[in-house]
This record gives sequence, structure tokens and C-alpha cells, in this order.
Amino acid sequence: MSWAYRHLLDVENLSSDEIDALLDRASEMRGFLDRNEDQGALLRGEHVALLFAEASTRTRLSFEIAAHRLGADTYLLDRASSSMTKGETFTDTVRNLDAIGFTMLVVRHHRTGAPWVAARHFRGHVVNAGDGWHAHPTQALLDLFTLRRAWGGSPDALRGRKIVIVGDILHSRVAGSNIWSLTQAGADVWLCGPRPWVRGFDQLARSLPSDRRLSVTDDLQSALDGADAVMGLRVQKERMAGGLSAAEYRDRYQINSERFARAKPGALYLHPGPINEGVEVTREVCLGPRSLVLEQARNGVPIRMAVLSLIAETGSAAGLSQTSATRLSQTSEATRDLSSAIR
Amino acid sequence: MSWAYRHLLDVENLSSDEIDALLDRASEMRGFLDRNEDQGALLRGEHVALLFAEASTRTRLSFEIAAHRLGADTYLLDRASSSMTKGETFTDTVRNLDAIGFTMLVVRHHRTGAPWVAARHFRGHVVNAGDGWHAHPTQALLDLFTLRRAWGGSPDALRGRKIVIVGDILHSRVAGSNIWSLTQAGADVWLCGPRPWVRGFDQLARSLPSDRRLSVTDDLQSALDGADAVMGLRVQKERMAGGLSAAEYRDRYQINSERFARAKPGALYLHPGPINEGVEVTREVCLGPRSLVLEQARNGVPIRMAVLSLIAETGSAAGLSQTSATRLSQTSEATRDLSSAIR
Amino acid sequence: MSWAYRHLLDVENLSSDEIDALLDRASEMRGFLDRNEDQGALLRGEHVALLFAEASTRTRLSFEIAAHRLGADTYLLDRASSSMTKGETFTDTVRNLDAIGFTMLVVRHHRTGAPWVAARHFRGHVVNAGDGWHAHPTQALLDLFTLRRAWGGSPDALRGRKIVIVGDILHSRVAGSNIWSLTQAGADVWLCGPRPWVRGFDQLARSLPSDRRLSVTDDLQSALDGADAVMGLRVQKERMAGGLSAAEYRDRYQINSERFARAKPGALYLHPGPINEGVEVTREVCLGPRSLVLEQARNGVPIRMAVLSLIAETGSAAGLSQTSATRLSQTSEATRDLSSAIR
Repeated sequence: MSWAYRHLLDVENLSSDEIDALLDRASEMRGFLDRNEDQGALLRGEHVALLFAEASTRTRLSFEIAAHRLGADTYLLDRASSSMTKGETFTDTVRNLDAIGFTMLVVRHHRTGAPWVAARHFRGHVVNAGDGWHAHPTQALLDLFTLRRAWGGSPDALRGRKIVIVGDILHSRVAGSNIWSLTQAGADVWLCGPRPWVRGFDQLARSLPSDRRLSVTDDLQSALDGADAVMGLRVQKERMAGGLSAAEYRDRYQINSERFARAKPGALYLHPGPINEGVEVTREVCLGPRSLVLEQARNGVPIRMAVLSLIAETGSAAGLSQTSATRLSQTSEATRDLSSAIR
Repeated sequence: MSWAYRHLLDVENLSSDEIDALLDRASEMRGFLDRNEDQGALLRGEHVALLFAEASTRTRLSFEIAAHRLGADTYLLDRASSSMTKGETFTDTVRNLDAIGFTMLVVRHHRTGAPWVAARHFRGHVVNAGDGWHAHPTQALLDLFTLRRAWGGSPDALRGRKIVIVGDILHSRVAGSNIWSLTQAGADVWLCGPRPWVRGFDQLARSLPSDRRLSVTDDLQSALDGADAVMGLRVQKERMAGGLSAAEYRDRYQINSERFARAKPGALYLHPGPINEGVEVTREVCLGPRSLVLEQARNGVPIRMAVLSLIAETGSAAGLSQTSATRLSQTSEATRDLSSAIR
Repeated sequence: MSWAYRHLLDVENLSSDEIDALLDRASEMRGFLDRNEDQGALLRGEHVALLFAEASTRTRLSFEIAAHRLGADTYLLDRASSSMTKGETFTDTVRNLDAIGFTMLVVRHHRTGAPWVAARHFRGHVVNAGDGWHAHPTQALLDLFTLRRAWGGSPDALRGRKIVIVGDILHSRVAGSNIWSLTQAGADVWLCGPRPWVRGFDQLARSLPSDRRLSVTDDLQSALDGADAVMGLRVQKERMAGGLSAAEYRDRYQINSERFARAKPGALYLHPGPINEGVEVTREVCLGPRSLVLEQARNGVPIRMAVLSLIAETGSAAGLSQTSATRLSQTSEATRDLSSAIR
């Protein structure tokens, strides 16, 4: 067992062994779910707060179901019903949740870094359920899990595969996390979208260690050429204003059957949802036989069961291994500035 | 046992035997509730999604309590907390809920036909909790159950009874479903309201088989004359604009003590709630000794327990009897157009 | 055991024995929580409705956790998801919740007296979770519990202690309830704030029995002089308009380290939250070593467990002792006017 983290904040720093531990656990959980078996003893007595400062259904439901399946109690704090965050600083909210007796905290927040800040003020376990444009680690893990299963299930299943992420990379926390987990799994990752939406990623690509393969282009044709998988991203209409219109985006970047045919035979299509059907992808592709979209939805619960059950086993902060404690504190350094911004 | 449906979408096609099976089960459940006995084994392991695209409290709570009393887990998706429906098509939302692992889906939707569409994309069980101006089958069933109990409890209890539904029939899904269940139970049903609100129902009345008795009038006096029960409907203030003012409606159609006296001695008053006290009915009548309003609220839980437990017993689609499968597919034909409208 | 109330509506009429019974029970519950022990049998089968007409997180979560820890089921009715209150009178909502099968009702409402009105139309148990500017009894009880624990735990722990409540006393239901529970515990209570915010309390102070000690001042310095504890209140920005600006309030009444030093050495700071950090109190004080703010949050759950479990033991209305029935009916008299205002 190579898991030693008290929190799951990002996939960026996870080693192959750590990711494998997570996906192995997810396989086990998926098996339990497929056989409709109960796992209600693993998190019995845990009180999970779902602090969702941004609306979400898919992710929120997956975490709720995952926690319940493991025997935990969940409590939702969303913007609509919550006065806690009114005026109160984010860190005060977190400290209060800790004091009230919550032992696990799942955070979705529009501000980058919020889960790191939470982790510094919460004595239990924190999971990042999406922060700003930054990271969405459980989504990246379920995408990896879904692809690995589709390609035979071995830890090497992604090695050398060409995977294209298409859309607004710059504002996508899904892309932000997938870049790390996919390149670490050995995939040849291509980021593709209009120039303003891939800006800065060239630099990132050049700065990566040589064993991570990342390419950036605004040319969909070359990106799709020989691709093993294409991952669409939701086009946020409110982000259109800056340059491209929705119609222009559709004309140049929509994944339709004709374009999808440029990828390898048998290539797969993924999308984190919710899908703007007819914008970033056509109905034919997203509902077609090579679409993994519903398989991704299906894997949301077992991945979150894996995450919650693994971090719970690391026990309290005091029980952390020296290594992981050091790494957590490095992360904390890096987000010190965020902390003052968010409080 | 004459129940073979995987879903409960409407009461329109239910036979007397099917309705009796449902009400018998509801009686049994009401008995359990009255004795505060646990029924937590019947739906153990079921995951119920409550997809409420329209606000509701009474109906939503009844379904939640019913599901919990039977041992199921419930998850609410309302407009406030839900991003799932943003941009995403309704059918995609339903497919995702299916993939995530939900086994039962309770749908309230402002679009007519939404539950039928859901039933075509969901492998588990679907219950219509109110669609557009169309149908509200569990409300009609609890109304029938309440009247039957009040009148002695036998399946024939409603035969020959004059029951008047007063108000905005045209825009009422409660009326829309009650018309079918009450006439089928042998009642002499009268629809009464201002002309624009009963428009088209004359034609429906003429088209019914001769053993269904339905009359339409805008004359409250003749409707009330000799009535065994009067069912009020909520006046939607936003619907007033077209013709009558609220004051005019009150003047001509409000059920007050004086008017209620025109009905038979011992006549009963029903209303699905929430009541605009002082508009469609006076405080004296709706809180009076002949009001069944709170009894209707009380019967909401046992009826929903009956529905959820009965449909759960029909098992998966594969397990459906040929008859019911055929009938379901006929229903599907009828709602094909709806499907494209809603997606 | 000196508890005989079916409801908890206010602390104003509670005797010392009754408060002691409550705090003793809370101590017991706090012990269970600290040892993470289950108490799931005490309220098994109870159905708790949380009717929150005003947003709240801290209080709502504490009640939910408390109910779950005792084995009860909870159902939230908030403004966002609730149509029940639309048009419908408050009393009708309460009657319906009763009919649907709820056995306990926790009410937060912007109208003073709402929980009393609820208690007259609900056959089960009602708890006031904050009504208008009037009362917040569970908050006052947890404040008392927190102070008593901090000062040694005996029932006499508060006797002779100078406790200063600073802020907008007039519009604070927290102050409204604390005045009664703290003076009854023998504390020397000072109310301090700008004149318009303490208006009328001089009169109240003069009308109290001689064994209750209450002083009123707009002079922070004399209030803090020799104080054993300072309780801050949330400054509602929307209330600023009438007189003082936020800046002026800060200049004259903010509790900062320098001012806090005027209190006794070892004096304690309390605040019900959510805190406007930098307005009514500085970060140094509210996060300092003498702050009880998180201890208050921690005690929210055990106090609510104590309240719910004690009132549940009084059984139905029929089972009430004559004394408590009489006292309840006196309370009802006093709130008769409220009733018509709220419905």
C-alpha cells in the first residue's frame, strides 16, 4: 500500500505508485457496486461536510453516494442554503466545521487554492472537488480509471497512447488536472484549442521532465491525427466573448463524426459533462459506440469511494508518515499567498 | 396481485384492478405508519433520485419520507443546487443519473411528458411527481384513497358519488389526473370554473366511453347542487391576467360556508394544497369538520410507499410481463414527439 | 429530573433546575461525542422537520447532526427548495407537517413568535431555532454551557461574574435570550452599544426582580472594566444606515487587544458567529487564546442533542404534567396576537 496522504488536493504530485493504489482501490469499489454489495463499515461514524461554494450536481452526488455507500453521514453546505460564508472568512468557516465535529471536508470553490487553505485549518481530511480554473483531481482520476479499464486495465494501458484534450484548456480545471495524471501514466498528451485558450501551455510543455510528453496546438486536424482518445471540454458560453463566437468554435473545433474519423480506428471519446450537445461535440459522437461519457459518470462513485476510504486510513495528522508530512508542508508553502487572498 | 408496471407515469391507463392493488398496498402502509412500524427492508439498497425541476415541498417530502421508511436512500436534485440541467439536455441528465447508479427516479418537471422521456432513458423505475399542466398521478391516487377511506373503504365507495372539481381545470395537473381516476372509480365528476378555464373539456367529456361520467359547467350553483365532495384547486395568481381578477374569481367561485351548504349534507371538501386561504376557499370551510385537507396530507406518504414498493417488485425491464411491456411501448409511441421537444 | 416541557421555545421562563437538567444532559452528550460513541437509539423513529424560513448554516447543521446522532431522520424545508410557504399561511404549513407525520419541528423564522404559533398547531415537539429579533434559546444555552465549562463546570460557576454583551442588542435574538439565561445563572450582565442599539433595556433592567443584575451603557470602557467575559454580536451591515457607520462602530466598539486588556486578566471572548472579522472584533482577539468561539461551535451539537432528547421524553401533550401544561398555555396567551400576525 503506497498511500500516505491525509488529503487529496491535487494529482500533480502523486507518484505512479500512489495513483495505482488509488485506481486499484477504485476497481475493488467498482466491483462492490456492480455486485450491489454493502461497504457500510469503512467510514462508519465519519461526518462528511460537502462545502460547495459553486453549484455542482454530478460531482456532489458522486461524493454523497460514495460517502453513504461507505457508511458515512453527509451534510451539504451550498450557496443557496448557507449563511456560514456570508461575511465570514473562508478559514473561519473551515475552523467552525472542524469544531462542529466534521471529520472529512469536500470542497468545491471558485477560488484557486481554497482546498489547500482548508487543509491548513481542518484537523480531518480534505478533498478538492474542483478549485477555480486550477484542479479537479477526482475527475482526472476517474478519467484515467475509465481509460485504463477501456484499454485492458493494466497500469501500462496508457503508455504511448495519444490523447487529445480539445477546448478551453486555459479555464479548465479538468484539463489542469488531466495534464498531470495522463502524462504521468505515459500518454502522449495534446492540448488543442483556439490560441487564446491554450496560451502559456507551450511554456509548460517545455518545462516538463523529458519523460512527460505534452504538445500544444491550435490545429485540430494534426491533433486528431492518429489519436487514441479525444477528451472534450465544456465550452462556457460566458467565456466566448473574448474572441471566438460559439458558431466559429463549432466550425473549427466541434468533434463531429467526420473529424472523429481522423483519429485512430476505435478511438474513444470522453467528456466530463455537462455537455453542450451540438457545440463542442455532436450527438452522434457523444452518444456513439466509442463514447465513454456514461462510463465516466459510472466511475465517479467508485473513484470517490477509493479516495475517501484511502485518506481515512491515513488517520490523523499526527499519524502521517514523515515523507507525506513534508510534502504537505511544501504544498502549504506554495499556497501561502492564496491563503491571504481567500480569507 | 395485478400490478405489472415498472413505472408510474399516469393514472389514465390504469385498470380498476391495478388501482385497487395500489390502494390496498397504501392501506397496508398506512397501517404500518399508524402503528409506527418499520418497513425498512422493502427498498433496502435502492438509490432514489428526486429530480425536481419545479419547486415543491409537500410532494417532495412525501416521496423522501416514503423512500426512507422503506429503507431506500434519497438524493435531491433541485433547480437551486443543480448544475446538471444547465445546458445539458434532459435526456442526458437522465442517462447520467442512470449511469451514476440510481435505481429509481422521481421526476417533477414543468414540461408535459418529461417523465415518459425519462422512462425511455432510465433502466430503473420512474415515477411522475407532476409534469406541466398534464398529470400528477400520485396526487390523484391519494385523493382517491382519501375519499374511499372517508366513504367506508370499499372499492365501490365512489360509485355514483357526485364530485365537483372547481377552479382552473385547464392548467391543473391535479385535475388532469383526477378526471381519470375518479371517473374510473364510478364517480359522477363535474368540472366547474370560468369558461376559459374549462375550455375543451366538453369535447373530452363527449369522447369518453359511456361508463365514464364527466360534466362541464361554469355555473357553480348547479355543480354544487347535490354534490358529495368538492375539490378545490390552487388559483395561480399569474394565470389571473388573461381574464378574471382574483376578486371576481372569489365573488363567483370561492367555496364559502353558504355555497358549501348547497352540496349534500355531510359533503366533503378536498384541496391538494398549498391553499390560498380566502381566495379559492374560506378558512371556515378548509379548516372545517368536513375538510379532508389534512387527511390528504397524511395519505401522501402511504400512497408513495405503495407506489415505490409496487413498482420495485416488477424488477428490471427484462422482467416485465409481455402485456405491460407492450403497454409501455404504446405509451412511448404517444410521447415520441415530447421527447424531441424536451431534449 | 426536572424537565417537563414538550417544547423549547425560550429560556425566559426556565428555572435553574430546568436549565441544570439541560446542561447536565448536554455534558453527558458532549462526553458521548468526545468518545465518538453512538446514541442512535434515543430518537429512533422520530421524524424531524427543519423549517428554516431564514438562511442558517451553523444552527441548521448542529440540529441535523444532533438529530442524526440520536437516531432521528431529518428533513430540511428552506426557502430555496420550499413551495410550501408560498401563499400558504404559516399555520397551514405547520398543520401539514404534522399531518405528513413529523414528530419534531425545529423552526427558524424572521417573525417574532413563529415557534409559539407552531407549537399551537403541531402535536409533536417544537424547538425555537431563532425567531425574529426575539429569542434564540439553544444559542443562549450553549453560551451558558460553554462559560460554565470554562469556569469549572459547577452550576454556580457564573455567579457574580461580570459578562458584557457588546453590539446591536436591540436587534439581536442572541442577546435577547442570553439576558435571561445569564442573569438567572447569577451573572452580572452588562449590555453595551451605541444608544439606539440599547434603547429600552434600561427599563427592562429596572423591571427585573432584584436577584437579576442587568446594567446598560453606551460606554465601552466602563463596561469592559473588570469584565470576566465579553460576548460580541454580529454587526448587521444593513442596520448601520440609521446612525453609526461601520467605521464609527469600529472606532468606538470594536473589541481589539488593547480594549480587551481592560477586562480582567484571563477574561474570555465569545461570539455566536458568523463573525465580521475586523468589524466587531479583531482577528487577534477572536482567534486568540482566550477566545471561546470554536468551543461555542463545538457545543452546538451536544446542546441540541440535550434539547431534542429531553423534550422527546416528555411524550405527547396528553402526558405533560399539569404545571408545564399551565405554563405553556400562559405562554400561548401571550402570543395570541402574534398568531394572527403570522398566519
